[in-house]
Amino acid sequence: MDIKYKEGLVPAIAQDNETGAVLMLAYMNEESLRLTIETGVAHYFSRSRSKIWRKGETSGNEQKVREILVDCDEDTILLKIDQIGGACHEGYRSCFFRTIDGEVVGEKIFNPEDVY
Amino acid sequence: MDIKYKEGLVPAIAQDNETGAVLMLAYMNEESLRLTIETGVAHYFSRSRSKIWRKGETSGNEQKVREILVDCDEDTILLKIDQIGGACHEGYRSCFFRTIDGEVVGEKIFNPEDVY
Repeated sequence: MDIKYKEGLVPAIAQDNETGAVLMLAYMNEESLRLTIETGVAHYFSRSRSKIWRKGETSGNEQKVREILVDCDEDTILLKIDQIGGACHEGYRSCFFRTIDGEVVGEKIFNPEDVY
Repeated sequence: MDIKYKEGLVPAIAQDNETGAVLMLAYMNEESLRLTIETGVAHYFSRSRSKIWRKGETSGNEQKVREILVDCDEDTILLKIDQIGGACHEGYRSCFFRTIDGEVVGEKIFNPEDVY
Protein backbone atom coordinates (compact mmCIF):
# COMPACT_ATOMS: atom_id res chain seq x y z
CA MET A 1 0.00 0.00 0.00
CA ASP A 2 1.16 3.49 -0.85
CA ILE A 3 0.46 5.39 2.37
CA LYS A 4 -0.29 9.09 1.80
CA TYR A 5 1.54 10.93 4.54
CA LYS A 6 0.61 14.55 5.16
CA GLU A 7 3.53 16.59 6.48
CA GLY A 8 5.15 13.21 7.12
CA LEU A 9 2.31 11.88 9.29
CA VAL A 10 -0.74 9.68 8.99
CA PRO A 11 -3.48 9.26 11.63
CA ALA A 12 -3.70 5.79 13.17
CA ILE A 13 -6.76 4.55 15.04
CA ALA A 14 -6.21 1.86 17.68
CA GLN A 15 -9.16 -0.48 18.09
CA ASP A 16 -9.48 -3.26 20.65
CA ASN A 17 -9.26 -6.47 18.64
CA GLU A 18 -11.60 -8.31 20.99
CA THR A 19 -14.27 -5.82 22.00
CA GLY A 20 -14.14 -3.51 18.97
CA ALA A 21 -13.82 -0.47 21.26
CA VAL A 22 -12.01 2.49 19.72
CA LEU A 23 -9.23 3.22 22.19
CA MET A 24 -7.25 6.16 20.79
CA LEU A 25 -6.04 8.02 17.76
CA ALA A 26 -2.40 8.97 17.36
CA TYR A 27 -0.08 9.75 14.47
CA MET A 28 2.57 7.72 12.71
CA ASN A 29 5.45 8.67 10.49
CA GLU A 30 6.98 6.18 8.07
CA GLU A 31 9.56 5.05 10.62
CA SER A 32 7.03 4.40 13.39
CA LEU A 33 4.85 2.40 10.98
CA ARG A 34 7.90 0.35 10.00
CA LEU A 35 8.74 -0.26 13.68
CA THR A 36 5.13 -1.24 14.36
CA ILE A 37 5.19 -3.80 11.55
CA GLU A 38 8.62 -5.14 12.51
CA THR A 39 8.08 -5.44 16.26
CA GLY A 40 4.35 -6.19 16.39
CA VAL A 41 3.79 -3.50 19.01
CA ALA A 42 2.39 -0.05 18.25
CA HIS A 43 4.82 2.83 17.74
CA TYR A 44 3.60 6.35 17.12
CA PHE A 45 5.11 9.76 16.42
CA SER A 46 4.54 12.42 19.04
CA ARG A 47 3.76 15.75 17.40
CA SER A 48 4.39 17.68 20.62
CA ARG A 49 7.73 16.00 21.37
CA SER A 50 8.70 15.43 17.71
CA LYS A 51 9.83 11.89 18.39
CA ILE A 52 8.78 8.29 17.99
CA TRP A 53 7.32 6.62 21.05
CA ARG A 54 6.49 3.03 21.71
CA LYS A 55 3.05 2.96 23.30
CA GLY A 56 3.50 1.68 26.83
CA GLU A 57 7.21 2.47 27.08
CA THR A 58 6.58 4.36 30.34
CA SER A 59 3.28 2.93 31.57
CA GLY A 60 3.69 -0.67 30.43
CA ASN A 61 0.35 -0.34 28.64
CA GLU A 62 1.57 -1.84 25.39
CA GLN A 63 -0.46 -2.54 22.29
CA LYS A 64 0.14 -5.87 20.57
CA VAL A 65 -0.84 -5.47 16.95
CA ARG A 66 -3.09 -8.16 15.46
CA GLU A 67 -3.98 -6.55 12.12
CA ILE A 68 -3.10 -3.37 10.24
CA LEU A 69 -5.75 -2.00 7.87
CA VAL A 70 -5.59 0.97 5.52
CA ASP A 71 -8.55 3.00 4.28
CA CYS A 72 -9.64 3.56 0.68
CA ASP A 73 -7.74 6.85 0.35
CA GLU A 74 -4.65 5.30 1.95
CA ASP A 75 -4.41 8.21 4.36
CA THR A 76 -5.60 6.59 7.59
CA ILE A 77 -4.43 3.46 9.39
CA LEU A 78 -6.50 1.21 11.62
CA LEU A 79 -4.63 -0.96 14.10
CA LYS A 80 -6.47 -3.87 15.63
CA ILE A 81 -4.70 -4.46 18.89
CA ASP A 82 -4.64 -6.25 22.20
CA GLN A 83 -4.35 -3.45 24.76
CA ILE A 84 -2.43 -4.14 27.95
CA GLY A 85 -4.08 -2.08 30.72
CA GLY A 86 -5.65 1.16 29.57
CA ALA A 87 -4.92 3.15 26.42
CA CYS A 88 -5.51 6.54 28.01
CA HIS A 89 -2.89 8.41 30.02
CA GLU A 90 -5.73 9.64 32.25
CA GLY A 91 -6.36 6.10 33.48
CA TYR A 92 -9.26 5.09 31.27
CA ARG A 93 -9.51 2.03 29.07
CA SER A 94 -10.25 4.31 26.07
CA CYS A 95 -9.26 7.92 25.40
CA PHE A 96 -12.88 8.47 24.30
CA PHE A 97 -14.28 8.44 27.82
CA ARG A 98 -16.37 11.62 27.57
CA THR A 99 -19.31 12.73 25.47
CA ILE A 100 -19.24 16.05 23.63
CA ASP A 101 -21.26 17.42 26.57
CA GLY A 102 -18.45 16.52 28.95
CA GLU A 103 -20.24 13.59 30.57
CA VAL A 104 -17.83 10.82 31.62
CA VAL A 105 -19.05 7.53 30.18
CA GLY A 106 -15.78 5.56 30.17
CA GLU A 107 -14.34 3.17 32.66
CA LYS A 108 -11.38 4.30 34.79
CA ILE A 109 -9.19 1.28 35.32
CA PHE A 110 -5.93 2.58 36.74
CA ASN A 111 -4.44 5.52 38.59
CA PRO A 112 -2.18 7.50 36.22
CA GLU A 113 0.08 8.46 39.12
CA ASP A 114 0.94 4.81 39.61
CA VAL A 115 2.28 4.27 36.09
CA TYR A 116 3.61 7.57 34.74
CA MET B 1 -15.87 20.43 25.59
CA ASP B 2 -13.24 22.73 24.17
CA ILE B 3 -12.39 21.06 20.85
CA LYS B 4 -8.81 21.71 19.74
CA TYR B 5 -9.01 22.33 16.01
CA LYS B 6 -5.79 22.23 14.03
CA GLU B 7 -5.86 24.51 11.01
CA GLY B 8 -9.60 24.64 11.65
CA LEU B 9 -10.09 20.88 11.47
CA VAL B 10 -10.43 17.91 13.78
CA PRO B 11 -10.38 14.23 12.76
CA ALA B 12 -13.65 12.37 13.31
CA ILE B 13 -13.89 8.58 13.41
CA ALA B 14 -17.22 7.02 12.44
CA GLN B 15 -17.94 3.74 14.22
CA ASP B 16 -20.94 1.49 13.63
CA ASN B 17 -23.04 1.82 16.78
CA GLU B 18 -24.25 -1.76 16.57
CA THR B 19 -21.29 -3.81 15.39
CA GLY B 20 -18.44 -1.60 16.63
CA ALA B 21 -16.84 -1.67 13.17
CA VAL B 22 -14.71 1.38 12.37
CA LEU B 23 -16.19 2.64 9.10
CA MET B 24 -14.21 5.74 8.14
CA LEU B 25 -12.22 8.74 9.27
CA ALA B 26 -13.00 12.21 7.95
CA TYR B 27 -12.45 15.77 9.13
CA MET B 28 -14.78 18.31 10.68
CA ASN B 29 -14.60 22.03 11.08
CA GLU B 30 -16.56 23.85 13.76
CA GLU B 31 -19.52 24.43 11.44
CA SER B 32 -19.78 20.78 10.34
CA LEU B 33 -19.68 19.64 13.98
CA ARG B 34 -22.46 22.11 14.79
CA LEU B 35 -24.52 20.83 11.86
CA THR B 36 -23.90 17.23 12.97
CA ILE B 37 -25.15 18.01 16.48
CA GLU B 38 -28.15 20.02 15.26
CA THR B 39 -29.35 17.62 12.56
CA GLY B 40 -28.31 14.27 14.03
CA VAL B 41 -26.67 13.22 10.78
CA ALA B 42 -22.93 13.35 10.14
CA HIS B 43 -21.50 16.38 8.33
CA TYR B 44 -17.81 16.62 7.48
CA PHE B 45 -15.46 19.11 5.87
CA SER B 46 -13.86 18.04 2.61
CA ARG B 47 -10.21 19.08 2.55
CA SER B 48 -9.94 18.51 -1.21
CA ARG B 49 -13.10 20.47 -2.07
CA SER B 50 -12.84 22.94 0.85
CA LYS B 51 -16.50 22.60 1.69
CA ILE B 52 -18.87 20.98 4.13
CA TRP B 53 -20.57 17.81 2.97
CA ARG B 54 -23.39 15.85 4.49
CA LYS B 55 -22.36 12.20 4.36
CA GLY B 56 -24.78 10.48 1.99
CA GLU B 57 -25.93 13.64 0.20
CA THR B 58 -25.15 12.01 -3.15
CA SER B 59 -25.21 8.29 -2.35
CA GLY B 60 -28.00 8.23 0.21
CA ASN B 61 -25.60 6.45 2.56
CA GLU B 62 -26.35 8.67 5.54
CA GLN B 63 -24.98 8.34 9.05
CA LYS B 64 -27.46 8.80 11.88
CA VAL B 65 -25.52 9.90 14.92
CA ARG B 66 -26.23 8.07 18.17
CA GLU B 67 -23.41 9.40 20.35
CA ILE B 68 -20.56 11.89 20.01
CA LEU B 69 -17.46 11.24 22.09
CA VAL B 70 -14.30 13.32 22.47
CA ASP B 71 -10.86 12.03 23.43
CA CYS B 72 -8.74 13.05 26.40
CA ASP B 73 -6.77 15.66 24.43
CA GLU B 74 -10.00 17.04 22.91
CA ASP B 75 -8.46 16.79 19.45
CA THR B 76 -10.31 13.76 18.02
CA ILE B 77 -14.03 13.03 17.74
CA LEU B 78 -15.66 9.61 17.74
CA LEU B 79 -19.12 9.37 16.21
CA LYS B 80 -21.18 6.30 17.01
CA ILE B 81 -23.53 6.02 14.10
CA ASP B 82 -26.12 3.96 12.30
CA GLN B 83 -24.77 3.66 8.76
CA ILE B 84 -27.26 3.49 5.90
CA GLY B 85 -25.70 1.28 3.19
CA GLY B 86 -21.92 1.43 3.04
CA ALA B 87 -19.58 4.12 4.34
CA CYS B 88 -17.02 3.74 1.57
CA HIS B 89 -17.33 5.39 -1.83
CA GLU B 90 -15.73 2.25 -3.29
CA GLY B 91 -18.77 0.18 -2.33
CA TYR B 92 -17.56 -1.37 0.89
CA ARG B 93 -19.26 -1.30 4.26
CA SER B 94 -16.07 0.16 5.78
CA CYS B 95 -13.32 2.26 4.21
CA PHE B 96 -10.86 -0.03 6.00
CA PHE B 97 -11.37 -2.95 3.64
CA ARG B 98 -7.69 -3.72 2.94
CA THR B 99 -4.77 -4.82 5.02
CA ILE B 100 -1.45 -2.97 4.84
CA ASP B 101 -0.34 -5.73 2.44
CA GLY B 102 -3.16 -4.85 0.06
CA GLU B 103 -5.29 -7.90 0.78
CA VAL B 104 -9.02 -7.16 0.53
CA VAL B 105 -10.70 -8.32 3.72
CA GLY B 106 -13.82 -6.12 3.65
CA GLU B 107 -17.27 -6.80 2.37
CA LYS B 108 -18.39 -5.10 -0.87
CA ILE B 109 -22.07 -4.34 -0.50
CA PHE B 110 -22.95 -1.99 -3.35
CA ASN B 111 -21.79 -0.92 -6.77
CA PRO B 112 -20.41 2.65 -6.57
CA GLU B 113 -21.60 3.34 -10.12
CA ASP B 114 -25.17 2.84 -9.00
CA VAL B 115 -25.10 5.55 -6.33
CA TYR B 116 -22.53 8.19 -7.30
